[in-house]
Amino acid sequence: MKLLQLDSSILGDHSVSRALSKAAVERITAGNPDIEVTYHDLVAEPIAHLTGRYLAGQSDDVQHDQALQDDLALGGKALDAFLAADIVVIGVALYNFTISSQLKSWVDRICVAGKTFRYTEAGPEGLAGDKRVILTIARGGLYGPGTPSQSFEHAETYLRSVFAFIGVANPEVIVAEGLALGAEPREAATKAALETVATLKAA
Amino acid sequence: MKLLQLDSSILGDHSVSRALSKAAVERITAGNPDIEVTYHDLVAEPIAHLTGRYLAGQSDDVQHDQALQDDLALGGKALDAFLAADIVVIGVALYNFTISSQLKSWVDRICVAGKTFRYTEAGPEGLAGDKRVILTIARGGLYGPGTPSQSFEHAETYLRSVFAFIGVANPEVIVAEGLALGAEPREAATKAALETVATLKAA
Repeated sequence: MKLLQLDSSILGDHSVSRALSKAAVERITAGNPDIEVTYHDLVAEPIAHLTGRYLAGQSDDVQHDQALQDDLALGGKALDAFLAADIVVIGVALYNFTISSQLKSWVDRICVAGKTFRYTEAGPEGLAGDKRVILTIARGGLYGPGTPSQSFEHAETYLRSVFAFIGVANPEVIVAEGLALGAEPREAATKAALETVATLKAA
Repeated sequence: MKLLQLDSSILGDHSVSRALSKAAVERITAGNPDIEVTYHDLVAEPIAHLTGRYLAGQSDDVQHDQALQDDLALGGKALDAFLAADIVVIGVALYNFTISSQLKSWVDRICVAGKTFRYTEAGPEGLAGDKRVILTIARGGLYGPGTPSQSFEHAETYLRSVFAFIGVANPEVIVAEGLALGAEPREAATKAALETVATLKAA
């Protein structure tokens, strides 16, 4: 069994989404030494912005320059790691109301027709539905149901759309929010999220 | 009067959002030779992913290495161009249900506390409300009100949130959609969007 862990917060050791993704992986793998964990820190080893050259280069068979060869290899590696994974754990930070551009760049490399979705006469069909996806999300403000800023949240809502599109209808989502509202709310929210992590089904 | 034009589609000459932003700028500046237009192609001259180093480097006064100095200069230039503009026209492409990572990287450089928003006792306050913002959005599928995929649209909804946060409550939004549904729908949608562009108020 394979698990892919991604982190996308730019805050390093101060990141709550990283602490949560780490705890989630520990929880899921506890008692199962056979799980093979692949880790990709999308901030330390970023994927570049998607380009038109990359899109064309995926399917043509001309000789590419070194930069494009490297980019195609990097994107292909990200896609392969995702396709190979049974379980995917993603640490997600909210910056300016949506995911980091590092995580968007990853999404742009794994949404590939014929690999993670395909178009049929009945409409698009997701091809990654065999995966278990866990999102550990950290947010500075409060965006939960009923809050005034709920409609400003475009990270959880966005990732739910993307994963639904590729076939993962029900990702497991764990949120710590209000982290920028002071030491006490931060601690309480982190503690509550870690308690939820502890209820994740082990693999 | 200053106008800032941004493009963020990776499709170059095939891009409808670029054709629309170009037409919008022509429409707005027609008959007013005094408007100073600044153009930033966010794909040809990309802004890097935001980093923790950048965030810290904006306010500390230590000596930075060359890479961070260059990044701070680039981000500062993007912010200054936005702050100086009276009118901002942005060509927006939808990739995998939201904006390109290139455009997200730009957003991350212009959302700066004390510059485009500030926190007050009454909550956050946008500081960029004196600007006219025009978004020309191109989408392959159909995401308009009442369509089955409406909730999958995270570009227009996202940018409306961001601009509302920094004080621009009512950006002018022009959408061409269904562009991937065939030559005829593409042509019709582009034509209709260009007709809407022609109704934009000249400056």
